[in-house]
Amino acid sequence: MNVDPQLDALFKPKSIAVVGASRKPGKIGYEILRNLIEYGYKGKIYPVNPQAKEILGLKCYKSVKDVPDEIDMAVISIPAQIILDVVKDCGEKGIKALVVITSGFSEVGNVELEEKLVKTARSYGMRILGPNIFGIVYTPHDMNATFGPKDVIKGGIAFITQSGALGIALMGWTILEEIGLSAVVSMGNMADIDAIEVAEYLADDPNTKVITIYLEGLKPGKGREFIESMKKVTMKKPVIIVKSGRSERGAAAAASHTGSLAGSDLIYDVAMKQCGVLRALNIEEMFDWARALATQPLAKGNNTVIITNGGGAGVMATDAAVDYGVELLDPPQDLKEEFRKYMPWFGSAKNPVDLTGMATPDKYYEAVRAAFKHPAVHTITVLYCRTAVCDPMELAKMLIETRKEAINKGINKPISVAMIGGVDVYEAMKHLNRNGIPAYPIPERAVSAIAAIIKYSMYVKRGK
Amino acid sequence: MNVDPQLDALFKPKSIAVVGASRKPGKIGYEILRNLIEYGYKGKIYPVNPQAKEILGLKCYKSVKDVPDEIDMAVISIPAQIILDVVKDCGEKGIKALVVITSGFSEVGNVELEEKLVKTARSYGMRILGPNIFGIVYTPHDMNATFGPKDVIKGGIAFITQSGALGIALMGWTILEEIGLSAVVSMGNMADIDAIEVAEYLADDPNTKVITIYLEGLKPGKGREFIESMKKVTMKKPVIIVKSGRSERGAAAAASHTGSLAGSDLIYDVAMKQCGVLRALNIEEMFDWARALATQPLAKGNNTVIITNGGGAGVMATDAAVDYGVELLDPPQDLKEEFRKYMPWFGSAKNPVDLTGMATPDKYYEAVRAAFKHPAVHTITVLYCRTAVCDPMELAKMLIETRKEAINKGINKPISVAMIGGVDVYEAMKHLNRNGIPAYPIPERAVSAIAAIIKYSMYVKRGK
Repeated sequence: MNVDPQLDALFKPKSIAVVGASRKPGKIGYEILRNLIEYGYKGKIYPVNPQAKEILGLKCYKSVKDVPDEIDMAVISIPAQIILDVVKDCGEKGIKALVVITSGFSEVGNVELEEKLVKTARSYGMRILGPNIFGIVYTPHDMNATFGPKDVIKGGIAFITQSGALGIALMGWTILEEIGLSAVVSMGNMADIDAIEVAEYLADDPNTKVITIYLEGLKPGKGREFIESMKKVTMKKPVIIVKSGRSERGAAAAASHTGSLAGSDLIYDVAMKQCGVLRALNIEEMFDWARALATQPLAKGNNTVIITNGGGAGVMATDAAVDYGVELLDPPQDLKEEFRKYMPWFGSAKNPVDLTGMATPDKYYEAVRAAFKHPAVHTITVLYCRTAVCDPMELAKMLIETRKEAINKGINKPISVAMIGGVDVYEAMKHLNRNGIPAYPIPERAVSAIAAIIKYSMYVKRGK
Repeated sequence: MNVDPQLDALFKPKSIAVVGASRKPGKIGYEILRNLIEYGYKGKIYPVNPQAKEILGLKCYKSVKDVPDEIDMAVISIPAQIILDVVKDCGEKGIKALVVITSGFSEVGNVELEEKLVKTARSYGMRILGPNIFGIVYTPHDMNATFGPKDVIKGGIAFITQSGALGIALMGWTILEEIGLSAVVSMGNMADIDAIEVAEYLADDPNTKVITIYLEGLKPGKGREFIESMKKVTMKKPVIIVKSGRSERGAAAAASHTGSLAGSDLIYDVAMKQCGVLRALNIEEMFDWARALATQPLAKGNNTVIITNGGGAGVMATDAAVDYGVELLDPPQDLKEEFRKYMPWFGSAKNPVDLTGMATPDKYYEAVRAAFKHPAVHTITVLYCRTAVCDPMELAKMLIETRKEAINKGINKPISVAMIGGVDVYEAMKHLNRNGIPAYPIPERAVSAIAAIIKYSMYVKRGK
């Protein structure tokens, strides 16, 4: 892939100018500067505002041209009417990439100004993210150059979003749900850099394990490029896309929203299948899968074992496995006998393996260890209903321990967990998530996550 | 319906004996007694244990026959081997209903003992819930006669469950999620009273607004009775069922779990449709729908308006509306003009109505008020992406206010909300839920809830 090295200036700038920095809390030009400072960006930050001497303790400049040092990237939030002059200044200063927050371009019919914006930037060799965006985050470099929530949690998921409002809102949601991100990229009008190029860049980013994209539509004529590009990206790491506007009515709404031609959904659907993109139906599903794919290895096959302490949960997971095309392994005799050791006589060593409500954390530990150990098992889903004899946090710690031991022995298999219960169960799930085991509040979501891993693993296997 | 008045003794007993009450925390016979006392049951409680003089401050009796007063209901948790004698004692004492926690009956092949248990109880005119259950909760009478979580939140949803472990775990989950319940009924082996009879009873319970059932299978030959009974129940109030064992493999798992014949899923599916039961695919969906149906009125029709501040959220909700068969109203001219007043020029008065990211709580207030007021609108879904200009709690309060004003004017329409964002958004959703407006973290779930209301409303309309 020919990724523009200029994109490095977007994700890993050594210095940033905030053009349109403001002294007034609540203003976009203030919030971006504050996020940059408080999230801990280590490079140089230069606020630019002709009216101010100092903002948030930083010396302020009248123009980027007055800054004595080199600048890699500029975040621009000034009125659209005066943007061309500022872009020229940036070009003359030798800035490499522009993050154009400003709106009032093609999204409101002002196509001409947008074209001029790109042309001007390109004439200086600059690349543009935006316009009409909320900014960019790259957590490995402690850079939060957005006016969204500040305390983005670090992790392996990159999130690319064509919708601004949704993107900002989801940033907050990832913090609440403790979903760790490597990057957040607001795409806006995609006047220059588009989602394909960003995905290509992140495919080679060692800090990104999974790429998630909220997409409403590509520019006309981009279909083939999308397929060719994604084929390469998905061989490097999983890509999950929510492509909204699935219905005709939804597509019409999307067209009036971003101005992009949503196109026939069937075409997108076929295209995504063809290039190994996992298509999620909604954002919950997208991040459910992403959390699993960011932490779990590829699956060697489709043979799954479900281990539960509640028959009902096991039945629901079994239904979900059939729905999602996950194969429930009929455990071989030796494995069955092993499972039998960790359950009372009225348990079930068939799959779902029912340890019964009498299961204590150590029984789970042993059963899951057996599943890790046995070569016939490719993936594992653990279900837990809150019982008095099995403390959820203790169970979480046991599961983390079993997995660690297996990995130390060179055995790594995808595992997902579902835990049903109250506050203490919620805390145990958080603990699992923080320690590399994706946990969900209902069995179906845990199985769906495993299904996504299997689907992606099989695609990669076929492609190699 | 011929509901046994004896069931009153199960839900509204004036006095309860806890047979097998224990002094040891953690023991089932202790936990049940403690839950009864601490949840605030107002009737008389009589612990029965030949070895103890007093438990948890209550005088203890050697046998129910030693209790000087009348006893309506006994909760029994003693070994299966000695249960028949105790049941006889209960019969002689004139007890009306038995909640048999004890396991070790048909679920482990001990069919004969189970038959004797029922026969003995019936010979005294007693009814049995169970055996092999975790108990029963009826919140309007402050009765928590289970060994599950204590602090069940009061509300309008009755939850009947055939799975014990799942049921207890879900009790905890409803507390975490602040889902208000009228009753929790653990069905277990259904040796005597079955889920159909309980549903019939709750159909006439003024404190229950919606009946939810986790069902694995009915006893053979119960199909017709189920359909006839549910036809009557669903004309009185909505019934939502998760029938697991949808797949063949799942059905096999269910059979080995509860011993019930799961039967062909297609038959269940047709049966449920025929009698107006809403079939949810999983427990999250079941409670999502239940929260909406417990608080919202019937819909007069299928015409829905989606009001959003984020285009992306609007597109996703539109896709979901198409998926779930919810009709998006093309707003009549006067309504469009009204909506236009509350958005900037680049907003959209088409449906989804996009107030744009500039929407403040008062704009939402006015737009939602217009939707309540206009007779062409039957149901409303409000979407919100966290923005700096719209505080989520303020928005929640505005929505509650708009709805209250409409109701005061005699206009009540189903409304659901989806809010995307971080901690403050989560708090705002809780506030909405506490005040009669169901709120969800993704647009799809808010639309799905409205779809369930419409589906049920149309069924009731056709039946009248």
